[in-house]
Amino acid sequence: MEGVLGKVRVAAFSMSVDGFGAGPDQSLDNPMGVGAMGLHSWVFPTRTFQQMIGKEGGTTGVDETFAARGFENVGAWILGRNMFGPIRGDWPDDSWKGWWGDTPPYHTQVFVLTHHPRASIEMKGDTVFHFVTGGIREALDRAKQAAGSKDVRIGGGPMTIRQYLQAGLIDELHLAVSPILLGSGEPLLAGLDLPKLGYKVVERTPTEAAMHLIVRKG
Amino acid sequence: MEGVLGKVRVAAFSMSVDGFGAGPDQSLDNPMGVGAMGLHSWVFPTRTFQQMIGKEGGTTGVDETFAARGFENVGAWILGRNMFGPIRGDWPDDSWKGWWGDTPPYHTQVFVLTHHPRASIEMKGDTVFHFVTGGIREALDRAKQAAGSKDVRIGGGPMTIRQYLQAGLIDELHLAVSPILLGSGEPLLAGLDLPKLGYKVVERTPTEAAMHLIVRKG
Repeated sequence: MEGVLGKVRVAAFSMSVDGFGAGPDQSLDNPMGVGAMGLHSWVFPTRTFQQMIGKEGGTTGVDETFAARGFENVGAWILGRNMFGPIRGDWPDDSWKGWWGDTPPYHTQVFVLTHHPRASIEMKGDTVFHFVTGGIREALDRAKQAAGSKDVRIGGGPMTIRQYLQAGLIDELHLAVSPILLGSGEPLLAGLDLPKLGYKVVERTPTEAAMHLIVRKG
Repeated sequence: MEGVLGKVRVAAFSMSVDGFGAGPDQSLDNPMGVGAMGLHSWVFPTRTFQQMIGKEGGTTGVDETFAARGFENVGAWILGRNMFGPIRGDWPDDSWKGWWGDTPPYHTQVFVLTHHPRASIEMKGDTVFHFVTGGIREALDRAKQAAGSKDVRIGGGPMTIRQYLQAGLIDELHLAVSPILLGSGEPLLAGLDLPKLGYKVVERTPTEAAMHLIVRKG
């Protein structure tokens, strides 16, 4: 039986006006790179984010709508290795289990792109981290299988999203342009000709905190 | 007697989400480069723009406020040669007098950066085009002298603005980020670390048509 196919999506991905999706010099103290917290100012006050960090309340406007939409119908995630952690090269041991503590906010199978093999990790709340060494297409195949009829969400970081965009494998990208200048960091779109790759902006929603764009292929 | 010094400003300068301030392949038919009219969607309906093209009416909201502010207190302009025209290399003759007909919208002295000398041209409505071969600082010195206590506005294009930003010579930049993807063209900020050059965002105003940012030095 063939089910309805889910989409491959990037959601709630923030970019500075000067084009960076993460700051420079990522480390344990600066998971998003130096100075890059401002990228995400639009999401922190939202109810979705507040619930994620175990708090009540939060805003319920347009920014919340976009934050919530990012988690709707998601059946599997793909993360680049830098989004999973600050470690580079071989895994020294099995102690690093992501930035998110015992109960990561994914609650699905999560496929982490890496050149360095490692056994899968089962976390609380039904998150399982798998480490994929075969490249972006292998990760996507496995994520689609895990997601079934639901969507695959590509979480980031910028390098991972760039690779999937370049390969034309992303169906929908929700981009939140934050009104800040970072000056340096990880570029998201530099050198990518999205219109030529078949992408166009189909929805534009400005808020005080960000310019939300839905970009679709086809 | 020392007067109050005017500012050196860029105003109403549009940039796509993917960082382009003009499209590719500028020509007589495409003064802003191919596909780049969408960059300026926010300004066309405004009263300021409508008056400029000899029409009545036009919008009077936030976009209009920014369009009008761009012309307030401007005592001289600086343009890159490509903003003045599509001709490259030596001037073949004196027939090209800008894109704007007999009465250009400047009404001040305008200093055009070029490597190729040419005599000044007096136009109707008090616009005078001067051709400056000594580089961006010479053009700025002459424009400041012409402007007196008023502001110097650097009109563009992207290459000209980049040179002045890199040299730290711009006091204020009003940037209008348009919710479009161009894919290729003239990048405005790529490779420029504005925070490192002393610039920061001091004002953010979203509209349906653009995200307006005021960026200041100091």
